Amino acid sequence: MTESTMGEPIVSDIVHDFITVIPAGGVGSRLWPLSQPHRPKFLLDLLGSGSTLLQDTVARVTPLSERVLIVTGERHAPAVADQVPDVPGANLVTEPSPRDSMAAIALAAALIEQRWGACVMGSFAADHLIPDAASFRATVAEAARVARTGKVVVIGIEPTEPSTAFGYIEMGGALEGEARDVIAFTEKPDAETATGMLARGGYAWNAGMFVVRTDVLLGHLDRLQPTLASGVREIAAAWDGPERAQVLGRVWPTLTKIAIDHAIAEPVAAQGGVAVVPASFEWHDVGDFDSLAELSGAASEAVAIGREAPVGVVGARAPLVVGGTKPVVVVGVDDAVVVESEEAILVTVRSAAQRVKDAASALADA
Amino acid sequence: MTESTMGEPIVSDIVHDFITVIPAGGVGSRLWPLSQPHRPKFLLDLLGSGSTLLQDTVARVTPLSERVLIVTGERHAPAVADQVPDVPGANLVTEPSPRDSMAAIALAAALIEQRWGACVMGSFAADHLIPDAASFRATVAEAARVARTGKVVVIGIEPTEPSTAFGYIEMGGALEGEARDVIAFTEKPDAETATGMLARGGYAWNAGMFVVRTDVLLGHLDRLQPTLASGVREIAAAWDGPERAQVLGRVWPTLTKIAIDHAIAEPVAAQGGVAVVPASFEWHDVGDFDSLAELSGAASEAVAIGREAPVGVVGARAPLVVGGTKPVVVVGVDDAVVVESEEAILVTVRSAAQRVKDAASALADA
Repeated sequence: MTESTMGEPIVSDIVHDFITVIPAGGVGSRLWPLSQPHRPKFLLDLLGSGSTLLQDTVARVTPLSERVLIVTGERHAPAVADQVPDVPGANLVTEPSPRDSMAAIALAAALIEQRWGACVMGSFAADHLIPDAASFRATVAEAARVARTGKVVVIGIEPTEPSTAFGYIEMGGALEGEARDVIAFTEKPDAETATGMLARGGYAWNAGMFVVRTDVLLGHLDRLQPTLASGVREIAAAWDGPERAQVLGRVWPTLTKIAIDHAIAEPVAAQGGVAVVPASFEWHDVGDFDSLAELSGAASEAVAIGREAPVGVVGARAPLVVGGTKPVVVVGVDDAVVVESEEAILVTVRSAAQRVKDAASALADA
Repeated sequence: MTESTMGEPIVSDIVHDFITVIPAGGVGSRLWPLSQPHRPKFLLDLLGSGSTLLQDTVARVTPLSERVLIVTGERHAPAVADQVPDVPGANLVTEPSPRDSMAAIALAAALIEQRWGACVMGSFAADHLIPDAASFRATVAEAARVARTGKVVVIGIEPTEPSTAFGYIEMGGALEGEARDVIAFTEKPDAETATGMLARGGYAWNAGMFVVRTDVLLGHLDRLQPTLASGVREIAAAWDGPERAQVLGRVWPTLTKIAIDHAIAEPVAAQGGVAVVPASFEWHDVGDFDSLAELSGAASEAVAIGREAPVGVVGARAPLVVGGTKPVVVVGVDDAVVVESEEAILVTVRSAAQRVKDAASALADA
């Protein structure tokens, strides 16, 4: 929360010296044909709310961030600029090619230091759903407070089920405030392991939300991934000058492809340098149509997203129907999911939602 | 078969004095949204063969019929005329309103007598599928031969399964040639009854194919349904003159609504007046998408009808996809049926094919 004189109302959530970095990448292949390489999930109004996941993300962080940087692929830069016109063009950081999350976030950190000096940065994916933005911001503010002490801070999502779709954070002893020490990160577990972790308690979902001082992050990187660190610093130094394209073209392809989890979170946690702030806000990655159906209340009644035409149901638990202009009737298929995009129609059921990632290749083979 | 000098090839199947009547009615509500009240099943190219069921029916009977009469609703007359331009307009008999099959067929019989005197007529529905037209015509020619003796002749389809979708013909002793006496007609049986009939043998499916002399048919009608008989004779007498509309408007609405099975077939069979010619040709009524899928070879591979765009399948027995212009992918739904018409999209599975008849009303309620 912002500083306020006691008794006065808090009129802004702005966190001093806090900059948000939004890595906007990932296709969302289980949401085909809505999401596709040319139209990734973060550009979609997945819930038919009138705003896209990226727009929601920017709106959510704007009240607490002095600045917002978006890191995205060159291909998507025009659509991103269209969708969030209030983010200055200079703050759209475009990658010539995907080199995994560490390069993207490190470049953003180096660019922030280059332009504005050391700050606290928070990195939040562009394609997650967090209905309660105020609660999210309160947690981030707390994470920023802890980050100022020199910790790499992750936000831990309270697990609601033994999901095998997320990595888990093993939480240790209490630090000051709400924060706790991170003992270790675990990769996506199998169902048995996940059930065991939930039963034991002390685990949170890792939603990839990091809050850290740029100098702390880059310091760890200097030590753990020195060529990556020097590479992003070199690119950042040239970014706002005439040499950007030349340096980017030369250095970017040489950067180590590694996820921030492996590059920073895991090794630094092992050295006691990572804290977790447990979050109580509702969080969804809306990674597939089962989760979209769940969120939208399908099954209790037919849910239509991004369409006007009616949906009829005969002898079936109510479906999720997304897109399209024609009336749809589902007969005798429980939990059906029918999705129409400009390019294609998907017919599936919620229990098969994970296999949708193979739909595009099945079509290519047809 | 037509008369031919021994040793000469038979160049025509024409049966002397034989006229085909094609009742073209019935929506085919289990084939929604392809078939709808404004676009009934018989007007559809259901198998994507390039011709409609009505066109196939006319083509099938033309080689053996001196004339073809089509009885259809006023609403469909223009489409029928478009589809079968070789049938003279005078032979399109339009009903002002549906009054069941006996009125339609009796009017056709009376009109035939009025115009051309007593003939042998064969009545064959406009929306059935018979791949082997030559075999069909051979059976009809045999039925016509038996009909000349004064019998009402039905063509009995050899049952391939204990279907509950059709009525059955109980066959008795042999008459001359291939014909057998009909003991009785049974309505659509339950599964147990159907299984029993197939086990006992001596039953054929009733496909509603009648061959009978017009004077025999109208004679039975005079006796069994006298007001219906006199009604159609009065209409027929006025049909080709200036009073048609007036007489039709006055008399047609008074005609008894009854199926030919109940009006003629059952009572005449009880009196020993019905014969059956067993048919060995393949016959399908293609009443629902399960039967369309079966006919089209779905399950062994994805079947697309009336569409160009590809069909992809992930983790499912192969679907039937009808109509539409966009690629379709089915993920994890066995035996899926996806049908797109100009107006709507149906998503179902073959096992739910019977319930499709409720799709239109489900949509109206949505």
